[in-house]
Amino acid sequence: EYATLDLDRNRRTGFPEVVYGAGKSPEQLVGIFSRLREHQELVLATRINEEQAEAVLRHWPDVRYEKEARLLIGAQKPFEPVREGYVAIVAAGTSDWPVAQEAAWTVRCFGSEARVIADVGVAGIHRLFQRLDEIRGAAVIVCIAGMEGALASVLAGLVDKPVIAVPTSVGYGANLGGIAALLSMLNSCANGVAVVNIDNGFGAGYLAGMIHRQSV
Amino acid sequence: EYATLDLDRNRRTGFPEVVYGAGKSPEQLVGIFSRLREHQELVLATRINEEQAEAVLRHWPDVRYEKEARLLIGAQKPFEPVREGYVAIVAAGTSDWPVAQEAAWTVRCFGSEARVIADVGVAGIHRLFQRLDEIRGAAVIVCIAGMEGALASVLAGLVDKPVIAVPTSVGYGANLGGIAALLSMLNSCANGVAVVNIDNGFGAGYLAGMIHRQSV
Amino acid sequence: EYATLDLDRNRRTGFPEVVYGAGKSPEQLVGIFSRLREHQELVLATRINEEQAEAVLRHWPDVRYEKEARLLIGAQKPFEPVREGYVAIVAAGTSDWPVAQEAAWTVRCFGSEARVIADVGVAGIHRLFQRLDEIRGAAVIVCIAGMEGALASVLAGLVDKPVIAVPTSVGYGANLGGIAALLSMLNSCANGVAVVNIDNGFGAGYLAGMIHRQSV
Amino acid sequence: EYATLDLDRNRRTGFPEVVYGAGKSPEQLVGIFSRLREHQELVLATRINEEQAEAVLRHWPDVRYEKEARLLIGAQKPFEPVREGYVAIVAAGTSDWPVAQEAAWTVRCFGSEARVIADVGVAGIHRLFQRLDEIRGAAVIVCIAGMEGALASVLAGLVDKPVIAVPTSVGYGANLGGIAALLSMLNSCANGVAVVNIDNGFGAGYLAGMIHRQSV
Amino acid sequence: EYATLDLDRNRRTGFPEVVYGAGKSPEQLVGIFSRLREHQELVLATRINEEQAEAVLRHWPDVRYEKEARLLIGAQKPFEPVREGYVAIVAAGTSDWPVAQEAAWTVRCFGSEARVIADVGVAGIHRLFQRLDEIRGAAVIVCIAGMEGALASVLAGLVDKPVIAVPTSVGYGANLGGIAALLSMLNSCANGVAVVNIDNGFGAGYLAGMIHRQSV
Amino acid sequence: EYATLDLDRNRRTGFPEVVYGAGKSPEQLVGIFSRLREHQELVLATRINEEQAEAVLRHWPDVRYEKEARLLIGAQKPFEPVREGYVAIVAAGTSDWPVAQEAAWTVRCFGSEARVIADVGVAGIHRLFQRLDEIRGAAVIVCIAGMEGALASVLAGLVDKPVIAVPTSVGYGANLGGIAALLSMLNSCANGVAVVNIDNGFGAGYLAGMIHRQSV
Amino acid sequence: EYATLDLDRNRRTGFPEVVYGAGKSPEQLVGIFSRLREHQELVLATRINEEQAEAVLRHWPDVRYEKEARLLIGAQKPFEPVREGYVAIVAAGTSDWPVAQEAAWTVRCFGSEARVIADVGVAGIHRLFQRLDEIRGAAVIVCIAGMEGALASVLAGLVDKPVIAVPTSVGYGANLGGIAALLSMLNSCANGVAVVNIDNGFGAGYLAGMIHRQSV
Amino acid sequence: EYATLDLDRNRRTGFPEVVYGAGKSPEQLVGIFSRLREHQELVLATRINEEQAEAVLRHWPDVRYEKEARLLIGAQKPFEPVREGYVAIVAAGTSDWPVAQEAAWTVRCFGSEARVIADVGVAGIHRLFQRLDEIRGAAVIVCIAGMEGALASVLAGLVDKPVIAVPTSVGYGANLGGIAALLSMLNSCANGVAVVNIDNGFGAGYLAGMIHRQSV
Ligand SMILES: Nc1ncnc2c1ncn2[C@@H]1O[C@H](COP(=O)(O)O)[C@@H](O)[C@H]1O
Ligand SMILES: Nc1ncnc2c1ncn2[C@@H]1O[C@H](COP(=O)(O)O)[C@@H](O)[C@H]1O
Ligand SMILES: Nc1ncnc2c1ncn2[C@@H]1O[C@H](COP(=O)(O)O)[C@@H](O)[C@H]1O
Ligand SMILES: Nc1ncnc2c1ncn2[C@@H]1O[C@H](COP(=O)(O)O)[C@@H](O)[C@H]1O
Ligand SMILES: [Mg+2]
Ligand SMILES: [Mg+2]
Ligand SMILES: [Mg+2]
Ligand SMILES: [Mg+2]
Ligand SMILES: [Mg+2]
Ligand SMILES: [Mg+2]
Ligand SMILES: [Mg+2]
Ligand SMILES: [Mg+2]
Repeated sequence: EYATLDLDRNRRTGFPEVVYGAGKSPEQLVGIFSRLREHQELVLATRINEEQAEAVLRHWPDVRYEKEARLLIGAQKPFEPVREGYVAIVAAGTSDWPVAQEAAWTVRCFGSEARVIADVGVAGIHRLFQRLDEIRGAAVIVCIAGMEGALASVLAGLVDKPVIAVPTSVGYGANLGGIAALLSMLNSCANGVAVVNIDNGFGAGYLAGMIHRQSV
Repeated sequence: EYATLDLDRNRRTGFPEVVYGAGKSPEQLVGIFSRLREHQELVLATRINEEQAEAVLRHWPDVRYEKEARLLIGAQKPFEPVREGYVAIVAAGTSDWPVAQEAAWTVRCFGSEARVIADVGVAGIHRLFQRLDEIRGAAVIVCIAGMEGALASVLAGLVDKPVIAVPTSVGYGANLGGIAALLSMLNSCANGVAVVNIDNGFGAGYLAGMIHRQSV
Repeated sequence: EYATLDLDRNRRTGFPEVVYGAGKSPEQLVGIFSRLREHQELVLATRINEEQAEAVLRHWPDVRYEKEARLLIGAQKPFEPVREGYVAIVAAGTSDWPVAQEAAWTVRCFGSEARVIADVGVAGIHRLFQRLDEIRGAAVIVCIAGMEGALASVLAGLVDKPVIAVPTSVGYGANLGGIAALLSMLNSCANGVAVVNIDNGFGAGYLAGMIHRQSV
Repeated sequence: EYATLDLDRNRRTGFPEVVYGAGKSPEQLVGIFSRLREHQELVLATRINEEQAEAVLRHWPDVRYEKEARLLIGAQKPFEPVREGYVAIVAAGTSDWPVAQEAAWTVRCFGSEARVIADVGVAGIHRLFQRLDEIRGAAVIVCIAGMEGALASVLAGLVDKPVIAVPTSVGYGANLGGIAALLSMLNSCANGVAVVNIDNGFGAGYLAGMIHRQSV
Repeated sequence: EYATLDLDRNRRTGFPEVVYGAGKSPEQLVGIFSRLREHQELVLATRINEEQAEAVLRHWPDVRYEKEARLLIGAQKPFEPVREGYVAIVAAGTSDWPVAQEAAWTVRCFGSEARVIADVGVAGIHRLFQRLDEIRGAAVIVCIAGMEGALASVLAGLVDKPVIAVPTSVGYGANLGGIAALLSMLNSCANGVAVVNIDNGFGAGYLAGMIHRQSV
Repeated sequence: EYATLDLDRNRRTGFPEVVYGAGKSPEQLVGIFSRLREHQELVLATRINEEQAEAVLRHWPDVRYEKEARLLIGAQKPFEPVREGYVAIVAAGTSDWPVAQEAAWTVRCFGSEARVIADVGVAGIHRLFQRLDEIRGAAVIVCIAGMEGALASVLAGLVDKPVIAVPTSVGYGANLGGIAALLSMLNSCANGVAVVNIDNGFGAGYLAGMIHRQSV
Repeated sequence: EYATLDLDRNRRTGFPEVVYGAGKSPEQLVGIFSRLREHQELVLATRINEEQAEAVLRHWPDVRYEKEARLLIGAQKPFEPVREGYVAIVAAGTSDWPVAQEAAWTVRCFGSEARVIADVGVAGIHRLFQRLDEIRGAAVIVCIAGMEGALASVLAGLVDKPVIAVPTSVGYGANLGGIAALLSMLNSCANGVAVVNIDNGFGAGYLAGMIHRQSV
Repeated sequence: EYATLDLDRNRRTGFPEVVYGAGKSPEQLVGIFSRLREHQELVLATRINEEQAEAVLRHWPDVRYEKEARLLIGAQKPFEPVREGYVAIVAAGTSDWPVAQEAAWTVRCFGSEARVIADVGVAGIHRLFQRLDEIRGAAVIVCIAGMEGALASVLAGLVDKPVIAVPTSVGYGANLGGIAALLSMLNSCANGVAVVNIDNGFGAGYLAGMIHRQSV
């Protein structure tokens, strides 16, 4: 038996098991979806390519495929925020857009509102200042940046809210597939930043959703 | 002029500028302390060795030197929690104790209660289960571990609270000065974990304090 | 001559030469198979893709191709365990399944029983406890995990049997193709763990089979 | 409270909790020793320097300090092997001697006989062949080597017993503190090898003792 | 003969040979100084510790030892700028001060004015804006930062002058001795940045001096 | 909204925003081009593949696609140098040609003349000497090399002009995708060298153009 | 002009310029071949794929394409050894065969005899001993191995001839694309070994040919 | 028994066993020297510090301690070259002197003449050309360089003799303890270079001596 589902996850952590789609065959995915849907109101799967999505949608046409975010979302309720306030998803460049979408939809799965503020990286820092009030109004901030990842430090020095930083693999050469941005964010000279894995929009959205949930 | 103090920090981030002690001469440190005390109720300095501490204490005997935590704390008020709830500081081994203390005192500077639960690493995992209720009762969890850093993943799978993970440099050989634990925590299979720099108890305590502050 | 077969290997090590399939042309593979079959009861080849498998099966239809495990097995006898007890193959996630299969079939080639216990990773640790009796009943344990590889440490703290750990390349970003799990397992805070190469299910199954063989 | 002792360890794993000495103050060490001696027949501590050893011996003069191996051993019984057969500890160079001693004494703590065969590295490979019968007679082999760590592969190709390989930090430059030997051993072209952390003689002796224990 | 002096360097590059002090014995240093003084108006030596400085000053008391900058400067003329304009040396934190001094004095050796603007890192970014006019007035900008090195990108997005970036080894853990800041600066999302080696204030000052020299 | 254009960039830095083409969809690219053309005389996009180029050219046939350089250039004026002097682009091998072209065209966008001197690497160093007068005549030098990147050091020792070095990913094995040349250039024993990211011909041309612009 | 041929190379080094084929377009390759053939008796090109080979052969059908070795050889004379003695090319596994061929043909271009002794790696070390007389009879030895590269050390301990070691990228996981074998060979405990780049059969054959040429 | 001497080494390789001094206690060293002197005409020990040297010289005052080279040489004959020709030891900077001495004395132990040509690095490349005739006259060339190690490539492009390259740990920051020079030399664009470990003057001298021995 290739899968041992963790049907108790929601009770322990307040969020049901999430399927990691990478490398799973369409058959495995359908099998896992089938069983999870019996027990969970929400079935979320990450890192889903189009072939995998089609296989799942063939069985359950109501499942939502967010293609840019590479997420499959099977939910029994529409996505209405269930609490006040919002999570700001701040992204440095246009190329970070898919990771920002992954974070935003994960936040929505938590029942929170997500506002995406894209392409405000430090090469033109006034773009950040123009949106600063909106960012400061958030309960939690997700900061997404590739290349040198400087946005996280700059942002954290300007706000009084937790910053969850996501390095992305946008870049080339000495970027080392996102390691440059990762190290940058881990070494932030501004305080109040914690970091998730490279390109892990899901993980940042998850933590942001969890923090928001308990902050109100 | 070697220093440009950020006297506006408290207004922007809700916490005053903190001094990074490593590599500063005792004279520089005293100079910076002197100016900060004029403007800030709380003056916190991290990574302070005994020689540095003595130089500062000679001027201001009321400053508190937490030697294990390597912190200098100049505060005008005693450390009474100003809000309900607490932050749990969970450490894997006895060798992680100093980093745990750094995190705990930083949390206290934020006006929150910090409870340290030490030496409950996964080699004897029942030790973690014995303290699980206390951990689950916290508003935020700081998880500190060296070697392979497995504690963060295990913990995150058991709680519905944010986990801020601190890899430590405890270990040798392929530990690579804490890189093993760092990578481990960044790749947690359990969700709801974000990571700060190796041995950065201060950074984790800071973020935990900030999350706790807004959660009540 | 591109190959110098080691026909003496079985005498020295108790197991015949195994073919490393990666990068070999179908012709080379058939050539090597042909000569080994003349001298060995068992001909095992690892890392075999479908094109290579077809070339070999065209010559010897009795050879078994375990596709998930990427193994070719030419054996003159059915796979009946020749000794008491069993090897437990414990895998953290569904994505580790192919490596688990490679380990399991290698164990069987040694004449031992292999029991696969899949998807019991630490994100839902109760899944491990539910299977702990079966795991404790094994003579040797192979532990397979990607991402942060925490399962190896947790498991080793719970059993009194050797744990052979296999890091897998399951994950992304700071996983570094399995290096995160590898370092994690090498730095296990629990004792009784040794590690083989990333994705090397064959190597772990081999060592487990060898240990089991002499343990009874 | 800086320590949470795992007094249940012996029941679960067949070996009591072992103290990791690195970085512990003499006071912490004496405190931990004191409590462990109340519950355990055997108290073993690794990575002990002379200052730490003196502090412990001042309290309990019967504790044995193996200085080369950097071990403290508090045992209620003399070290007589309790089972047949032996573990061979094969070391490549004279500089690997301390790691070999650490492995040997750990094996003896398990109640097994340990035979050290030192300085038989591949630069003069006939030295290995001269001792091959004695090595082949062992139930388990620990192979210790620094620099390029080639001994592990050579040895594994010549024996039908498990080889537990220990890379050492002996070397310089591109040795990278033992990483060269570590990678070498992980990539052994000969089968039946698993690897522990750099300089981890204790870990290898532990696993060898465990394998030997169940092999008779 | 341990040294082959490059007495032709000034003719080719416009600046005489500079002595790299690290690892040279005081005798070697005195020997080299002695010969260079015969041929060069300016003798500059970098990475000089106090013992080395004393040995040189004993022979030539007119040589200037800039202790923070670790430079020895033997010059026949006082340091008066010989051209209009200035080089701005912008440093992120107080700990970057010594590297800033090394850069500043090297610029002065080139006959240019150097203005140091210290401790204006991105954690309190208004400090940078307060000094921006002065920075924008420079002909070339040297930007010095440790930890995550974000200052270089921010700065480059705000000015129309070349930015020579110097990563420093200020930081710990995942800073990797300055590699984090180095990678950050190499991956700047803002254009117009080039990078020198970690802590290489001399190299940055040299290039800045050269650019300034030809810009007027 | 996936893009927040920095229409103010030209005012601040003297050069308009440049589009980073990698990973952008043809639609995104056309959208961004469309808006930039309204505000900027020059629209430059880097890392453009043929599919992207076609999409843009379909809308604006006057845009120039430099295929080897992978640049799209939308300019309202022909490329006539607007100032005296030139930038020398010196490349080590034939394989570095595309990066040299990227640098050269970027220099031309700055209004400067670019002269490419290709395939004069150190394996046949007389080729460099044959072109040395032309190189020395330049105001700034861009030096492009893969493999071991030695050309940068050799060149810097022979000229009195700034050298902007570009490591390329030309090579294999221990070249590590250009890291060998990058480290080499950062550690140049000759002074006056600063480095940009691997394969970043654009960045080097940009800085060279900026230096040239202010040098006359 | 993309190429500056080094037509003087033969005079300086005793061997004409060799073309590095990787990344060159068929047109560039034909252009370079055309000019080199006018000046050199021997035109050698490395890392040539089939498409490139076809383009060249279409122009000069007499050029020899060694497909496994990925070499193009345009020679005016047949390959008869011009001196006594031979170079032994010793390879560890079947998968190292292409690199061995690259080395062998390069040696032949030097006018020396090359004898390939393949698949004699240390997993079955008697295979090496069986061929030892032939190896010892060589003037120079090229040793080619992937995985852990142990063969180089073993061989160097058994012969009184120079050993040029070539690590190959054969392996997976912690092999890191040949880095494991490279580090292994650089750290050889046996003396008389020097190393070339990963998979660089050409470089090793070149050096071996050069040594052989002057040894007789 | 901590040592198993390889008294047969001279017969196999033409050079007796050499002692690796690093980490050996003075007692171990004296013990090994004592036994080797009984069997070998030449006893060579590398990486010897002053304390070790004194211990050995107390027993055998005729042993020669080359302090800069950190070698102990116990030889029964004076160092007269026994063959024609010489080995050129070419070093880039003054700081590479100790490694050059280690190489030179090793060559002399082989009975060859060694000529050291120091401080002729590429920052002032005319220094190399001034000595080129002497270098070209050598039978073998050892090239020693730290920082970016460019000298090896330049040299190899100018000579028709084997170049054995030794990277040194001279440098700082992104030099990574010699890794920069090591990678540089492994990726030489000029042919005829092979590399030994960082700072391994002994290994290079050994191979050069061996090549010279057979070249005449
Ligand atoms: N994108 C993701 N990144 C990291 N972890 C994930 C991601 N998606 C799911 N997971 C977690 O990965 C664990 C293992 O997945 P599986 O291979 O599906 O058994 C699940 O329990 C999830 O909590
Ligand atoms: N999957 C595997 N991983 C590691 N080693 C292997 C594997 N399969 C076979 N081997 C070993 O690799 C050695 C070299 O293989 P070959 O290239 O076939 O000569 C064989 O002797 C096997 O013992
Ligand atoms: N080839 C390149 N290398 C590095 N940075 C670039 C390159 N091309 C454009 N950029 C910069 O990358 C920034 C972010 O790009 P974007 O993803 O387009 O928002 C832009 O502001 C440019 O200044
Ligand atoms: N396989 C190879 N590995 C390393 N260097 C090579 C190889 N083939 C040719 N070369 C060298 O690479 C240099 C640069 O090549 P090119 O890019 O052709 O100008 C040539 O001068 C050759 O000496
Ligand atoms: Mg943008
Ligand atoms: Mg403990
Ligand atoms: Mg699962
Ligand atoms: Mg020895
Ligand atoms: Mg400051
Ligand atoms: Mg060329
Ligand atoms: Mg084989
Ligand atoms: Mg010099």
